[in-house]
Amino acid sequence: MNIVQPPPLSPELIARLKNIVGEKYAVTDANDIAPYVTEERNLFHGHSPLILRPGSAAEVSAICKLATEHRIALVPQGGNTGLVGGQTPHNGEVVVSMRRLDKIREVDTASNTMTCEAGVILQNAQQRAADADRLFPLSLGAEGSCTIGGNLSTNAGGTAALAYGVAREMALGLEVVLADGRILNTLSKLKKDNTGYDLRNLFIGAEGTLGIITAATLKLFPRPHAVETAFVGLKSPADALRLLEISRDEAAGGLTSFELLADIAVDFSVRHGIDVRHPLADKHPWYVLMELSSSRDDARPTLEAILARGMEDGIVDDAVIAANLSQRSGFWKLRDEMSSAQKPEGGSIKHDVSVPVAAVPAFIEEANAAVVKLIPGSRPVPFGHLGDGNIHYNVSQPVGGDTADFMARWHDVNAVVFAIVLRMGGSISAEHGIGVLKRDELPDVKDKVAIELMRGIKAMLDPLGIMNPGKVL
Amino acid sequence: MNIVQPPPLSPELIARLKNIVGEKYAVTDANDIAPYVTEERNLFHGHSPLILRPGSAAEVSAICKLATEHRIALVPQGGNTGLVGGQTPHNGEVVVSMRRLDKIREVDTASNTMTCEAGVILQNAQQRAADADRLFPLSLGAEGSCTIGGNLSTNAGGTAALAYGVAREMALGLEVVLADGRILNTLSKLKKDNTGYDLRNLFIGAEGTLGIITAATLKLFPRPHAVETAFVGLKSPADALRLLEISRDEAAGGLTSFELLADIAVDFSVRHGIDVRHPLADKHPWYVLMELSSSRDDARPTLEAILARGMEDGIVDDAVIAANLSQRSGFWKLRDEMSSAQKPEGGSIKHDVSVPVAAVPAFIEEANAAVVKLIPGSRPVPFGHLGDGNIHYNVSQPVGGDTADFMARWHDVNAVVFAIVLRMGGSISAEHGIGVLKRDELPDVKDKVAIELMRGIKAMLDPLGIMNPGKVL
Repeated sequence: MNIVQPPPLSPELIARLKNIVGEKYAVTDANDIAPYVTEERNLFHGHSPLILRPGSAAEVSAICKLATEHRIALVPQGGNTGLVGGQTPHNGEVVVSMRRLDKIREVDTASNTMTCEAGVILQNAQQRAADADRLFPLSLGAEGSCTIGGNLSTNAGGTAALAYGVAREMALGLEVVLADGRILNTLSKLKKDNTGYDLRNLFIGAEGTLGIITAATLKLFPRPHAVETAFVGLKSPADALRLLEISRDEAAGGLTSFELLADIAVDFSVRHGIDVRHPLADKHPWYVLMELSSSRDDARPTLEAILARGMEDGIVDDAVIAANLSQRSGFWKLRDEMSSAQKPEGGSIKHDVSVPVAAVPAFIEEANAAVVKLIPGSRPVPFGHLGDGNIHYNVSQPVGGDTADFMARWHDVNAVVFAIVLRMGGSISAEHGIGVLKRDELPDVKDKVAIELMRGIKAMLDPLGIMNPGKVL
Repeated sequence: MNIVQPPPLSPELIARLKNIVGEKYAVTDANDIAPYVTEERNLFHGHSPLILRPGSAAEVSAICKLATEHRIALVPQGGNTGLVGGQTPHNGEVVVSMRRLDKIREVDTASNTMTCEAGVILQNAQQRAADADRLFPLSLGAEGSCTIGGNLSTNAGGTAALAYGVAREMALGLEVVLADGRILNTLSKLKKDNTGYDLRNLFIGAEGTLGIITAATLKLFPRPHAVETAFVGLKSPADALRLLEISRDEAAGGLTSFELLADIAVDFSVRHGIDVRHPLADKHPWYVLMELSSSRDDARPTLEAILARGMEDGIVDDAVIAANLSQRSGFWKLRDEMSSAQKPEGGSIKHDVSVPVAAVPAFIEEANAAVVKLIPGSRPVPFGHLGDGNIHYNVSQPVGGDTADFMARWHDVNAVVFAIVLRMGGSISAEHGIGVLKRDELPDVKDKVAIELMRGIKAMLDPLGIMNPGKVL
């Protein structure tokens, strides 16, 4: 799809758009606009004449109607924490910020559902579920500022996907405003509903290119009584994979997180993170951060049994179980700071890939060799959700090298890594999405017929191409 | 969509279609055609000049290409066990039987996936998973003859959906032949893949109206070490709901089945089923058949703890835990014969509805009152998957009444029951689908914009309307 720079909005159209949300909720001052058009890593910069902050689905609908009438391009935005530039107005589009739609419409503990508006901050949704003695399991680094609407539009993953699935699996129904302003209502508390085509999943993961999600009915789960967390030192990803199998065998669905961490990633986090400490006395080539949850009191003995089997089998070299909540937070802090801890090490070329779980060790070995061959001295920093086959395969620049020179090789490094991913039947975007960052690679890696169907769906739902233009396709 | 009776196929076109699959696999003899155009309950009768039995996705593709060229209407068919007439050629369409595509292409225990062709019998898929020490959890009455392709096309539910979800949640990727013969390949072993729109879920549950599923990559799960089954007598659906909450609290994800059975349903099954015995000494107004699965040895004590809590709280009046595999099979046989055991009692008007789990007791109470008011003496026989809010709300005719008179009230009874379902935010088809049986009701119960989008999707994927015409829409 060709991106056409939209013509400047006439003062009259700006006035009509402002009128929909009210003067107070239309942002036109350049200083006030700034936080909406850049993102926290400063990787993507956009520009926009107008940020609209609607307070209801009806206002979103009115915005879309007017946008369709006058071919005004819109960029929906949640917490502005996306990593692929999907929420940025790269071409001067009007931004529709969903943050004011922040009501939790209902928590139904009998049906174990919660109906949230799109602008609800993920952490607030988690908290509201906990207040009702339930678990809303979606959890990721940005949870303090990302929104439910953004989580669904990008089909967010995170650290609990192993047991509870990705965002797609947590939504029972949606309310969506279509490009022409029609409001699709599939909000539902039903676990089973076979009345026609599945529309919900079209909008989940569509990154705002097919419509704007305004609310969702989400699944709630029983709150685990016990959570136990271990930090494990081991020799290789292959050993981590064997430990994963042992853990599944012993704990089944009780295994709620299983994160693989390269030594260098832990090292960066310990050196550059604030208040991050190494949980083990000695260094190991690889680590696993794993967590068990249980509705009974058996998480601790099960975790101990897993680690004992791992030691017997010569897989686990050392391990520590968090003795209290503060130690547990410490383990997770080490993990959560892993991305930002790469900054002080210079340029970092990032990948968010997945391969079949069994192929992770081979993928890491081959990718490391290929990347170091391409750029001698470059430092692969792989870490991520081993249980999902999802590795954040980041590459830090050579020590003392030129950052700009290194970052200029972004696409070269991508090409080498993606080739291995594709050969293994993997995905070039496991959980972050396509946005603009991977848009141009998509046709090369995706089934040709799938791309044709995607274009057909886009043309059907957004014939004028006004919904988040230039993203995904 | 208006159903146009297709013109008779010319001998030349029949010859060309036969040529694609080979003479041996083209059925034209009326006696041989019969089993494909009627279904086991004898509720739906169709007719067809030709049954094609392709042996590969390429042959299915060639059939669809020719069908598009000459506007030949096709009805895809799996095990022919559907309950809503979706698999029947009501208007003389050509049937594409998928039964010969019965290869299990791969079982990957490291990635916990299995790639099956559409014609694989569900029971064979379960068995193959078990042989590899894995669980493929989809389970339903027709598992001995229904196929994976049919299960996915109808988004089958069944008795394990409580813990493992419906068929939709068990498929990672699909191979689909589109109306024009293009083959969409999204087969994938990946748990996470955020590269573009979700196409897989469009075809799952579309009942063959958007394309023909030819293969699927399915999720496998750890095989539970211990399964414990109890048959419980209690006073009311409300008490059953409280027992469900206690069970979830104690067993969490280990609760794999929770079936609510009305006394009359148990009674019919015991009286008319072969080798079916009542598991309890005394009769109770309601029963629950529940099952716990565990990867450890704790299923039995957990089940005992649940029943003890239920007795303490005055919810459980009596209960028996299956002492061995044969007793367990006996409990399930009682449940599995429940549908067919209604036949000797005369006419039965059936519903497959869902409401929010918490609303089930109120639904049953209100529906019972309304149905008996409409037809005095009629006998509601509710049973089903309480944990999913999915009740098979069947109504047997009055004792000694006229069967034809009773069955003529099918739509009147539907109207009364559906009105209650809709008022409670429920679905008129929880797991069986729409087919032709509920097609005309769909526009009345579904969001108007949802119906518009469904029509748009149908027009995009099947512009000539040759894929299972007249079903769903």
